[in-house]
Amino acid sequence: MAISTEPANKKVKVMSGQVDDQLAIDTIRTIAADMVQKAKSGHPGAPMGCAPMGHALYTHVMRYNAANPHWWNRDRFVLSNGHACALQYVLMHLAGYKDVGLEDLKNFRQLGSRTAGHPERDLLEGVEVSTGPLGQGICNAVGLAIAGAHLAATYNQDGYELFSNYTYVICGDGCLEEGVSSEACALAGHLGLGHLIVLYDDNKITIDGSTDLAFTEDVSKRFEGMHWQVLEVARGDSDVADIIAKVEEAKKCTDKPTIIKVHTTIGYGSAKQGTAKVHGAPLGDEDLASVKKKFGFDPEKFFEIPTEVRSLYKDALARGQQANKEWDALFVEYGKAFPREHAELTRRAKGALPHELESFLPKYQPGDKAKATRVTSGEVLAALMEHLPEVVGGSADLTASNMTNMGNVPIMQKDAMQNRYIEFGVREHGMAAILNGMHAYGGFLPFGATFVNFIGYCWGAMRLSCLSEQQVLYVMTHDSIDLGEDGPTHQPIEVLPLLRATPNMNTIRPCDGRETVGAYKSYLANRTGPTTLILSRSGLPTFEHSSVEGTMKGAYVIDDFTGKGDGKVIIIASGTEVLQAVEAKKLLSQEGEVDVRVVSMPSWNLFERQSDEYKKSVFPQGVKRLMVEASSPLGFERYAEGWIAMDTFGASGPASKVKAQFGFTADNIYIKAKRLAASSS
Amino acid sequence: MAISTEPANKKVKVMSGQVDDQLAIDTIRTIAADMVQKAKSGHPGAPMGCAPMGHALYTHVMRYNAANPHWWNRDRFVLSNGHACALQYVLMHLAGYKDVGLEDLKNFRQLGSRTAGHPERDLLEGVEVSTGPLGQGICNAVGLAIAGAHLAATYNQDGYELFSNYTYVICGDGCLEEGVSSEACALAGHLGLGHLIVLYDDNKITIDGSTDLAFTEDVSKRFEGMHWQVLEVARGDSDVADIIAKVEEAKKCTDKPTIIKVHTTIGYGSAKQGTAKVHGAPLGDEDLASVKKKFGFDPEKFFEIPTEVRSLYKDALARGQQANKEWDALFVEYGKAFPREHAELTRRAKGALPHELESFLPKYQPGDKAKATRVTSGEVLAALMEHLPEVVGGSADLTASNMTNMGNVPIMQKDAMQNRYIEFGVREHGMAAILNGMHAYGGFLPFGATFVNFIGYCWGAMRLSCLSEQQVLYVMTHDSIDLGEDGPTHQPIEVLPLLRATPNMNTIRPCDGRETVGAYKSYLANRTGPTTLILSRSGLPTFEHSSVEGTMKGAYVIDDFTGKGDGKVIIIASGTEVLQAVEAKKLLSQEGEVDVRVVSMPSWNLFERQSDEYKKSVFPQGVKRLMVEASSPLGFERYAEGWIAMDTFGASGPASKVKAQFGFTADNIYIKAKRLAASSS
Repeated sequence: MAISTEPANKKVKVMSGQVDDQLAIDTIRTIAADMVQKAKSGHPGAPMGCAPMGHALYTHVMRYNAANPHWWNRDRFVLSNGHACALQYVLMHLAGYKDVGLEDLKNFRQLGSRTAGHPERDLLEGVEVSTGPLGQGICNAVGLAIAGAHLAATYNQDGYELFSNYTYVICGDGCLEEGVSSEACALAGHLGLGHLIVLYDDNKITIDGSTDLAFTEDVSKRFEGMHWQVLEVARGDSDVADIIAKVEEAKKCTDKPTIIKVHTTIGYGSAKQGTAKVHGAPLGDEDLASVKKKFGFDPEKFFEIPTEVRSLYKDALARGQQANKEWDALFVEYGKAFPREHAELTRRAKGALPHELESFLPKYQPGDKAKATRVTSGEVLAALMEHLPEVVGGSADLTASNMTNMGNVPIMQKDAMQNRYIEFGVREHGMAAILNGMHAYGGFLPFGATFVNFIGYCWGAMRLSCLSEQQVLYVMTHDSIDLGEDGPTHQPIEVLPLLRATPNMNTIRPCDGRETVGAYKSYLANRTGPTTLILSRSGLPTFEHSSVEGTMKGAYVIDDFTGKGDGKVIIIASGTEVLQAVEAKKLLSQEGEVDVRVVSMPSWNLFERQSDEYKKSVFPQGVKRLMVEASSPLGFERYAEGWIAMDTFGASGPASKVKAQFGFTADNIYIKAKRLAASSS
Repeated sequence: MAISTEPANKKVKVMSGQVDDQLAIDTIRTIAADMVQKAKSGHPGAPMGCAPMGHALYTHVMRYNAANPHWWNRDRFVLSNGHACALQYVLMHLAGYKDVGLEDLKNFRQLGSRTAGHPERDLLEGVEVSTGPLGQGICNAVGLAIAGAHLAATYNQDGYELFSNYTYVICGDGCLEEGVSSEACALAGHLGLGHLIVLYDDNKITIDGSTDLAFTEDVSKRFEGMHWQVLEVARGDSDVADIIAKVEEAKKCTDKPTIIKVHTTIGYGSAKQGTAKVHGAPLGDEDLASVKKKFGFDPEKFFEIPTEVRSLYKDALARGQQANKEWDALFVEYGKAFPREHAELTRRAKGALPHELESFLPKYQPGDKAKATRVTSGEVLAALMEHLPEVVGGSADLTASNMTNMGNVPIMQKDAMQNRYIEFGVREHGMAAILNGMHAYGGFLPFGATFVNFIGYCWGAMRLSCLSEQQVLYVMTHDSIDLGEDGPTHQPIEVLPLLRATPNMNTIRPCDGRETVGAYKSYLANRTGPTTLILSRSGLPTFEHSSVEGTMKGAYVIDDFTGKGDGKVIIIASGTEVLQAVEAKKLLSQEGEVDVRVVSMPSWNLFERQSDEYKKSVFPQGVKRLMVEASSPLGFERYAEGWIAMDTFGASGPASKVKAQFGFTADNIYIKAKRLAASSS
């Protein structure tokens, strides 16, 4: 732990304890309450209780530049208890973020307003991550801190501390009750993320009442067990100086994240303060007026911001702009000393890819040894990791199964934060939330891996990748009943429909190496949302006519009509089932009665973006279609008149036997296709 | 904490340390390794490492009767690291469970075998809960322990300790890394579940390698922070006496659950012992032979069980049968002393409902005050809780929003385990897994509640309710964009398709009070799977022709053709959208051009079970249909030619404005229905 040569609280004495701080805090409280009152909806209690913390961070602690929300080395702020967002919006308004004018505060929670009911990264610059679903923000913050520490370890040089920012979190009891936070915080302690500082709003109140109802654990002990430093602020409703002092103390501990228990009163100032009643409903006219009187404001006035408060925040903005300017100059100097790194960082900051991408992606040819798509995925990913330093990620303790480290990339650890492979532990949900945080830092292409079926463990975070439009890669292997012996507890049935039903999710289920390459290229091109790859456990040949470009169009002809036969039918398949579909076509061709086209359809969402002309070229009108996919058939009517799919859970057994049991054989496809062709005449 | 008057280890000296114990343990190890080897698939490491614990439990510790797996007061065993199931199957075979013959051990992981790749409650009697997805089992165990403690507090009388069983868990590192276990274990500590005893297989190895890679937290400290007793067994590979002694010590602590850290060696006996290599693949012929030699077995023989081992387990069976017999006698005596309670328990054990059910369910009539379906749900649930003692459950800290305690049922707490309302805390995933455990205990109708959108937080456990065919009730409120201001972080889009795609899930989205009653009746009748209710935040009238019976059929005519107009169209709607559909029909009827039938379709799965005749009566051939549902339209093609649905995420704003923005208005339905009717001519 680094020891400062200055007395610990010298800075504190200079920077806080001023009259203006109290005035600012009370201003924040009343405006947050005004916002909720005007919206007739929202949560006044947490903003009023957390106002001292929020104010301390935005005026005295954080190095950020409201005029440039994209400064790479800015301190990050995450409001993990996102329902307290009136606080964040008031702070952003005071701080000078251009998109949060006074009108925006007045339009809190109104349709079309950026000041939405919970903070949304996709809506408002300066909101680092979308929060509200409890526990997500604190995990995103772990991702932000990992990202910062990784860039620091990779690029900082003596005299060039390019990356030195802190990540600050405000969270409530709810965030700590959620299991996802245990997962990410355990990893944060393991990695010793010294630049992660959590202010825990310890107000003893949850929605249902006192924390005594269900949350009585010793939080300090739990976090110490996870190798965090635990500090405490006794009078969090008023003692800004102590909040700042504890943050300074946190910073001195460089090898552990810190959680500061800040004892506060929910709804401080309200007649209902300290109770659950002030949690999720407007205060009401009378109480609101009494709060204002108590704080010395005019109870008749709304959204009143004293000049002294404005001026306090103007100073913070000036300091932030100055710090940003100095950093920009440092980065220029860095470029002179380290031109290669400078160029790389510049490219990463823009999210640009190197032009020679094509040259280093693996090529697959018919006749190659059969490989599972988890293996071809592993090969593509290894190539990307070799050439793209922004690709950072790992697996939730299934590396050798997910094939996510075939390049033997060194593992990120406490003393080796520059390494790029992450062992997330058996923590799927935490992993996904961390990936969202890493992406939000900027300059990263983060990925995570587990079994397809365990998407059900991490959906809370994956859906936020979609909502926040974040380019996160989910490498999901051991798809479908094809995984065999592990049985129905591990065999996904409902996952493809889930992904297909979710806006902004790019879902791809490739059938061989070439389609895997196409899937990765689609992922790299898709910058406004996550991509989920659905990959096989068992081996597949490279198909004669499989295609990278076809994959990127979502569906294409992989084995066409021969021109022989009276009947006609199209078999649509994806992933492992393409193999049986192509075999069934052979049987039908040998027989000569029914002419068959096999369409490989790795991605519905990619196909649905194509022109009508292209769609009709793949699926000509009047030809009946049979869809073959080892998944729930929900939605198959969109593409087919008949199907072979999974209406029940699977079973434990060798893959080929399980697939046969549920009808995924060439013979059964042959029968069903023939029957369908006959029905069409 | 109760203090025993006997010396702590008196019993231990008598019961363990025998030569036969070691022989039995080594037998279990070799047979588990044989099973994996024969299956060419599975996990030998954990069974070999956990054999001493498993043997101690099944022969010296647990009170159970293999001849009657349904004895209510049996001790429960949960293998939370379900991949170690070769262990459980060997133990069950030795113990005398009729469905685990030697052939079943030889058919491990084969299609059609009960000895599936992970233990499945639905397949094999004596498997209490389905495990494999990590973390679930330990949470199920919390549910089992809650159930036992609740029945004990409710029914036990002086001299009649009907319910006194313990719940034993073996779990690994993975289970403790998963956030879901933190959630449930925190609640277990809060409730002081003294009859829950976890044996933690502390082997320092995860799939990816040493736990040093990602799991370095101080588990003891974390569990102490959650108010557990933490004990330790230093030599868990051999010291059966110490395992038994620590279990005895655990039992003495009656006001806390206990976790016993048992230091073991993964794959004990293998040349690869103590490494990740022995985790998830067969040992190989050579290593397997060397293991057998080491343990004094014939390396040429497979599935060899020495007579002494058989006899040891025969004694355990005899003791179990005797204990069961004594309990049966006690229960008869209890019946004489407490006939009402005896009758109630007998009814609960059978899962029978009282006949007067109809009489106490609320009735709703057109003209009643508009109520959200979360409110009508709350009213029905309150009536059930009043009359059915087996209805036990609560909310994940959203009681006043989910309306799950409108009857003000007292809250279950450490010193009031007889109470029936559970404050789960903000722990959705843990809650769902606990509900599965409570159901598995027998005699319960457990329910849990949160917002619909947070199904994405607890899916890992909800899918297991489906797979294990457990009658769990999920009361999910604040459905769709109709929740308004909380915005897209809280507005489900993809949840209905997820539920509809999952086998055995009964999903119902009622539109008013009568449909809510129908939904609950369907839930009570559906004993082979969970039911999820999708309930509104905002108010709805009781519709003129809404129907309890119609709801139970999944879809029915709620507003029929008038017989006037040239065109014809059916509008299908569910939940909140039925209101706009009925309004649109009025507009169209006034105009007189298009004749409209409105079909309320609260449940696809219920409708799909009806006769073709009924289906055709609801949807006569040749009439086009417009589906209106504020959800992803995935699968709508099954029922309709056109729809109004959600292709994007929602938005924050007042509900009526948000619904209007996305087209859920009578006017828009009117336009779309008219257009569709025209296209059909």
